[in-house]
Amino acid sequence: MRTREEARARDAADPLRGLRDRFDLPEGITYLDGNSLGALPRATAARMAEAVRDEWGRGLVRSWNAAGWIGAPARVGGKIARLVGADPHEVLVADSTSVNLYKLLAAAVKARPGRRVILSEPGNFPTDLYVAQGVAEMLGDIEVRLAARDAIIDALDEDVAVLLLTHVHYRSAAMFDMAAITRAAQDEGALVLWDLSHSAGAVPVDLNGAGADLAVGCGYKYLNGGPGAPAFLFVAERHQAALRSPLSGWMGHAAPFDFGDDYAPGAGMARFLCGTPPILGLAALEEGVDLLLGADVPALHAKGQALCSAFIDCVEERCAGLGLTLATPRDPAARGSHVSFRHARSWPVMQALIARGVIGDFRAPDILRFGFTPLYVGFEDAWNAAEALRDILVTGAWDDLAYHARAAVT
Amino acid sequence: MRTREEARARDAADPLRGLRDRFDLPEGITYLDGNSLGALPRATAARMAEAVRDEWGRGLVRSWNAAGWIGAPARVGGKIARLVGADPHEVLVADSTSVNLYKLLAAAVKARPGRRVILSEPGNFPTDLYVAQGVAEMLGDIEVRLAARDAIIDALDEDVAVLLLTHVHYRSAAMFDMAAITRAAQDEGALVLWDLSHSAGAVPVDLNGAGADLAVGCGYKYLNGGPGAPAFLFVAERHQAALRSPLSGWMGHAAPFDFGDDYAPGAGMARFLCGTPPILGLAALEEGVDLLLGADVPALHAKGQALCSAFIDCVEERCAGLGLTLATPRDPAARGSHVSFRHARSWPVMQALIARGVIGDFRAPDILRFGFTPLYVGFEDAWNAAEALRDILVTGAWDDLAYHARAAVT
Repeated sequence: MRTREEARARDAADPLRGLRDRFDLPEGITYLDGNSLGALPRATAARMAEAVRDEWGRGLVRSWNAAGWIGAPARVGGKIARLVGADPHEVLVADSTSVNLYKLLAAAVKARPGRRVILSEPGNFPTDLYVAQGVAEMLGDIEVRLAARDAIIDALDEDVAVLLLTHVHYRSAAMFDMAAITRAAQDEGALVLWDLSHSAGAVPVDLNGAGADLAVGCGYKYLNGGPGAPAFLFVAERHQAALRSPLSGWMGHAAPFDFGDDYAPGAGMARFLCGTPPILGLAALEEGVDLLLGADVPALHAKGQALCSAFIDCVEERCAGLGLTLATPRDPAARGSHVSFRHARSWPVMQALIARGVIGDFRAPDILRFGFTPLYVGFEDAWNAAEALRDILVTGAWDDLAYHARAAVT
Repeated sequence: MRTREEARARDAADPLRGLRDRFDLPEGITYLDGNSLGALPRATAARMAEAVRDEWGRGLVRSWNAAGWIGAPARVGGKIARLVGADPHEVLVADSTSVNLYKLLAAAVKARPGRRVILSEPGNFPTDLYVAQGVAEMLGDIEVRLAARDAIIDALDEDVAVLLLTHVHYRSAAMFDMAAITRAAQDEGALVLWDLSHSAGAVPVDLNGAGADLAVGCGYKYLNGGPGAPAFLFVAERHQAALRSPLSGWMGHAAPFDFGDDYAPGAGMARFLCGTPPILGLAALEEGVDLLLGADVPALHAKGQALCSAFIDCVEERCAGLGLTLATPRDPAARGSHVSFRHARSWPVMQALIARGVIGDFRAPDILRFGFTPLYVGFEDAWNAAEALRDILVTGAWDDLAYHARAAVT
């Protein structure tokens, strides 16, 4: 992709191009941060008004049944299941990714008595490691062991209860081979818990095809569920009856409205509910998931890969010699739907990009991260971002802009 | 209150009467279930549209700073603090009541090494007991001991780590003397965790006046935060540095955006955050809390008590001999803002009431529950409810109606 005209031609030929109109994106913004917070689907504003005015305002408490609120966690979970290769009764929407990590990690460690290690990689998304440390502290005599990603399989032994990995890395976008890693861990008797936060809706995921045990994922990134959207969790059917959530709240009870004194876990995924479901968040998330399910999902994944490749090519050609190093795999099959470059001054450079309307992310210590959500990002966006980056690096414009940006934030 | 005219006269003389217009209540409904799901404040619909269209849609990821999203849990918590007698930096909004119970119960038990009992009462709200059982199972060698409410103080001994009680009982509305119980427990070296779900916004609560240690509460009842609104938690300042949340998610880290591998708890209440805050739910909750804070809160509490007393009088006079037994303390100072009656056929009777537009709640096994939210309930509502109840019980109309109601629900 060597010219703006070429980028435009690719957009014009893109059969998915019309999906962008389903989003309410501000003018003049190139939004490459959908892997941090997905954009607003146009339909969501109307859906939220309905949920607030009609369901809550008019229906009041009756809407738990009449508007299907009580079934929303399983219903929306069943829809997400179709995006991650699971059966509908294996996915539930509840709480946050962090809380769901805690539920499944604790349940999995307790399901492997005699094994005292949670294995993960250094540099995994922080909440995964922090939650593992919290589980270890609660249970006692549990070690959180870290092994570099190319040494993970060698680090599996008979002490490992759970292998906890993020499928697509939040910084590098490097993607694990889910089937191979799962098989290796299961061969050693461990369970695997996959964090799909940067995968669901972005890349092909086939949990049951990979023989996966457990997974969690985020609602507000590629699922476009809104800021702080509820998260999802997956438990393969074969594990559901044996695992018990430590967060044994009333909504996970076998008969929550009997109001008995003793906890009895609900059947299937129901036991992984805890408190009262966040209905307004679920309404927004369902709209985002419906939009994805209405599209050609395999074509979207292919477009995401093409966008990332085009952006890498553009930047490496147009910004050659300007201090950028690619931090993302070149092989589309080995990465997610974002691209990261290292730069010595990545924080002020990203502030300068944002000031020009190109919104990506800085990730400590030196990463410039650009997310390519194929639903609403096009090839000209990739071109614009590369051009803005080049201009900033060539002119040193980030020096002055960064000062003002920092002053505005703090 | 012996006539409808008298009820109308009391409404006409009520200086708080105008607050009802701040709510979007459907015509023809007498809503006495605000203690299950509070009604929709009119301002909330506009606020939600702003949060969705402007903050999410236009601001996108920039709104974490620009729209104050990142500070919302502490900001809204600080507002709720004013309703429960706490300092602003002692209250945080996060997760659900059940999840917050888990955080504080686990932290409190670990802060009392050598003590192995969580003490509560049988018939406490189920999630409180279920979560206590979950904490006990995770920690091992912890007993959940139950003692009837009049024997609670006698059951305190040197084994009790935490006393877990709901301030206003969800069925009977009976209210504990927070200061006396807290003192008794602390004298035995235990911490007390109060569940304020049926108290906050309904009755005077003075956590610091009572020397309270810990509390949680619900956002979707008297705070009118919307279905499944996020909940709040309180930790007295003197305990904050010593307690550690088992749910050590990234937002509770001392420096979440440093993305380091090791968990370090944030200062003050920040450590009790876990995952990314639910921004849409927080926006709705803040609007409900703001409405309360803009009113004369002590006068609201007094009106709530007067409404409950008037309803008890009406029902006992108009429905005498019809099989109802008061299940709520007569003394306004000893109860919350709802009234419960027992009846042998309470489920179909409540269905018949709902079919007539009088919305209360059935609570197993035999409770008819009526909530009096003084913000939007008036004396004529109490009269209407008593009259409908009388008519249904006299005519046996519930028999037929209940059949249809059940058919419609299932």
